[in-house]
Amino acid sequence: MLHTIRTSLVKGHKHCLQCLRSASTLGAQDKPDNVRHFSDNTQTRSDMAPSRTGSELAEARGNQHPGVIEPLSVKGGTQSSYMGSRRGIMSSSANSFKNIELQPIPVPEYTEDRDLDLDSDVDTFPCQNSNKTSGPEPEYDNIVSGFKTFHYDQPFALKYRKGVLPDLHLAYETWGELNEAKDNAVLIFTGLSASSHAKSHEENERPGWWEKFVGPGCAINTDQFFAICVNNLGGCYGSSGPSSINPSTGKAYGTKFPILSVEDIVRSQFLLLDHLGIDTLYASVGSSLGGMSSLCSGVLFPDRVGKVICVSSCARSHPTSIAMRYLQRKAIMMDPDWQKGHFYTTGRYPKSGMKLARELATLTYRSGPEWEERFGRKRISEDSEPSLCPHFMIENYLDYQGEMASTKLDPNTLIYISKAMDMFDLGETFGNLHSALGRVKSPTMVIGVQTDILFPVWQQRELANVLQEAGNNAVTYYELNSIYGHDTFLLDLSGVGAGIKGFLETQLTETGRTRQRKDKN
Amino acid sequence: MLHTIRTSLVKGHKHCLQCLRSASTLGAQDKPDNVRHFSDNTQTRSDMAPSRTGSELAEARGNQHPGVIEPLSVKGGTQSSYMGSRRGIMSSSANSFKNIELQPIPVPEYTEDRDLDLDSDVDTFPCQNSNKTSGPEPEYDNIVSGFKTFHYDQPFALKYRKGVLPDLHLAYETWGELNEAKDNAVLIFTGLSASSHAKSHEENERPGWWEKFVGPGCAINTDQFFAICVNNLGGCYGSSGPSSINPSTGKAYGTKFPILSVEDIVRSQFLLLDHLGIDTLYASVGSSLGGMSSLCSGVLFPDRVGKVICVSSCARSHPTSIAMRYLQRKAIMMDPDWQKGHFYTTGRYPKSGMKLARELATLTYRSGPEWEERFGRKRISEDSEPSLCPHFMIENYLDYQGEMASTKLDPNTLIYISKAMDMFDLGETFGNLHSALGRVKSPTMVIGVQTDILFPVWQQRELANVLQEAGNNAVTYYELNSIYGHDTFLLDLSGVGAGIKGFLETQLTETGRTRQRKDKN
Repeated sequence: MLHTIRTSLVKGHKHCLQCLRSASTLGAQDKPDNVRHFSDNTQTRSDMAPSRTGSELAEARGNQHPGVIEPLSVKGGTQSSYMGSRRGIMSSSANSFKNIELQPIPVPEYTEDRDLDLDSDVDTFPCQNSNKTSGPEPEYDNIVSGFKTFHYDQPFALKYRKGVLPDLHLAYETWGELNEAKDNAVLIFTGLSASSHAKSHEENERPGWWEKFVGPGCAINTDQFFAICVNNLGGCYGSSGPSSINPSTGKAYGTKFPILSVEDIVRSQFLLLDHLGIDTLYASVGSSLGGMSSLCSGVLFPDRVGKVICVSSCARSHPTSIAMRYLQRKAIMMDPDWQKGHFYTTGRYPKSGMKLARELATLTYRSGPEWEERFGRKRISEDSEPSLCPHFMIENYLDYQGEMASTKLDPNTLIYISKAMDMFDLGETFGNLHSALGRVKSPTMVIGVQTDILFPVWQQRELANVLQEAGNNAVTYYELNSIYGHDTFLLDLSGVGAGIKGFLETQLTETGRTRQRKDKN
Repeated sequence: MLHTIRTSLVKGHKHCLQCLRSASTLGAQDKPDNVRHFSDNTQTRSDMAPSRTGSELAEARGNQHPGVIEPLSVKGGTQSSYMGSRRGIMSSSANSFKNIELQPIPVPEYTEDRDLDLDSDVDTFPCQNSNKTSGPEPEYDNIVSGFKTFHYDQPFALKYRKGVLPDLHLAYETWGELNEAKDNAVLIFTGLSASSHAKSHEENERPGWWEKFVGPGCAINTDQFFAICVNNLGGCYGSSGPSSINPSTGKAYGTKFPILSVEDIVRSQFLLLDHLGIDTLYASVGSSLGGMSSLCSGVLFPDRVGKVICVSSCARSHPTSIAMRYLQRKAIMMDPDWQKGHFYTTGRYPKSGMKLARELATLTYRSGPEWEERFGRKRISEDSEPSLCPHFMIENYLDYQGEMASTKLDPNTLIYISKAMDMFDLGETFGNLHSALGRVKSPTMVIGVQTDILFPVWQQRELANVLQEAGNNAVTYYELNSIYGHDTFLLDLSGVGAGIKGFLETQLTETGRTRQRKDKN
């Protein structure tokens, strides 16, 4: 219980904060002489002899501070002043900084019922697992059926460490019809943790992770386009990955799986396109890792991609993003149950490491403004006193997200694919970014989100600028002010969805007189 | 080894990426009919019969994309075009998007020396502990001597849960001389993990955590001011905290320590001021948690603080900051060696949890721009192939910072004080922020940093605005563009240091004609 007192200081009395405490424990008569007195009634500053602290300070309080460095933003004061109001504090005019009405200060009071033996329940940690909260979350989820599988039965050589996979499986789903010319295919590259199930269909009616973005009349209009989505190489939703059985050994690869690159992911999907007889994509589309892949497809296969769409992504990974993914990998790898990645048949699963990793990921996927609006300082239970356990809704939310996601994705998939994202640098392969992005022959759309902390918007600006500087005269760059941070691509139909639809369906021809570009060479 | 080829497509041949692979493993004569051919020499696009994919796409490529949403920033293309240059690709004019010179695509080649049995060292994790990197890091450090101790031998009641400490120790250090009027004291409130050792002195010559900011002629000029710095209540550098012995039990408190608040931290330090006979501070100064405390001192003791300085802080904690601290606590608390906080005499220390927590903290203290400049994509070893271990300098840096900091701070101190920061909300105690900040009677300086992700700059703007709206007509607000993120306050002498010095030493009186403020009441 808080005991409220008024700030009214009597000169010469000190230990102001212990006054009431002293009064209640030592008895009012035992107040030491050097204890400040507090009165519990309303007293004005004018009742007291003010104890000033030097003319400098006194003068300082009376006037506006001119500052020494030009402030970037200082609004004029707008307060109303009180002079001698009933509860206002009135100082002498020489000392007055302003006259304000002071409310009581709550000061904790020590009484015998206070828990002096410290046997409270602070250290019992009844951390609640109830009161979970949900919201507009990604629909990434495990799928075990409802997809087709492409089997490539030859060795597949990888970019790094002379890695080779003896064969390759890719799970994929399609929507719409491939036309006779086979030129209406749109390849949807996924983020790190997504399956091929971007959209519900007859074989799997659960909503997909991009449910509202794909379909008849949608951003990717399946009345017009043949949409394809593939579970990434390295994934765990039907494609070859660390949890797959290595045909050479009959056991799960675990961390015997070779190191992956984004280029490997892209190249494997073009093998599927070959298999489907698709020579040239109408467009490649992707966000986050998918944006890297989409861009990479335009660089590696400039003649096979008609339009490139790259949302909330980058042309090369930057140290802050690497740091965020590194810490997720570390959380998993330090879990003893991870067992160097060979946990599949041990009956132990690195749940706690994976959960922390997914909570960390959630922190990087969303943003301050959304959480401010959604959670603010809301408590899990409004009447509970704080403990060392989660107290605020935001903590509960992260816990919930971590819990939900901790068993949906193979921890090794997270490790391998996040590593591939770290390694991603289109400039590395082609000498520099300009050379790499100069290869992209198709119109390219870049979308960035101002609240994204994982792929900050300056990286999208860099990407759009370098594309243009490298010679691409059909770059569409949109910068969105969505509050959803990195996850905007999963949620923002009106910004991301409309942008993609417009870019895909606009006849990219100039009507009227063709503008002539002057060749500099 | 990467085998480089030119992109030159021959219509009708597919599986382009497997071409060389097939050629090398199956023999050039065994190329299946559906394999794309690659030539290794320089071939131009005009040599080939282009396989176009519909007039729509063809047209699209030839022109500028008009867009459907007004782009925020699209620069005009600046490329130079090649027509028929030796290595350039020349398409038919109807199809030409642009004419560019394509460099070779590196395609991994499968040869027998590639490691098909997957017995590589990918899963050996020789994660390096060498090659550590250092830089302008905080000088927070453990101290065991060279400070004075204030002992308050009465029960100290805390804000939450009716918590009480039977007594109180506070470690503190001072610099400069307290003048006769005792009105030249500047109280330096610290951040979460700092000791009282802000500055070297005779009893402890090691550099302090604010070494260059405090001293003769410095930002806090000890020729003029009597600087005081206290190890926070809850700390582990001489003040009462979870690692202290509870006199009631003779054992370390551990998580029997009562829940702390920022108000408790501030009130305890004013007991020390009483002890020193300091009625009124010339100023309180603090950054981060210290900024919360400094501001809080102006709210709780408006008559005892002459000027308030609050750097990279806030008036209440926001959910993203809470989330960042929550994950640090979680990393510690899920370490089995934490043992519900009672690890002190067990011979086990939650090292790995604490290390991960400190790595996480480092992520929140620094910022993208600095890391971009300092590390970019630098490798730990330039000639190493990627593995699942750290590969980039940024990973090594975080590992190093975590390692260094993991044993310098009591994990329970981190848990308790970070919780106090989460709970901090000046509006909570006084109904709302306006009422709380309206209590501050002294000139107040607020400094924010644009790259701070832990205390984003909008929170400093909020603080400065609310102070002004609540009636403070002497608010100095500086917004710094330092690249050092939250840690700017530890590093930026020219911005933070000069600002503080100017604010402390400027005679806050108007020279010349006094401007009259119109009272609205």
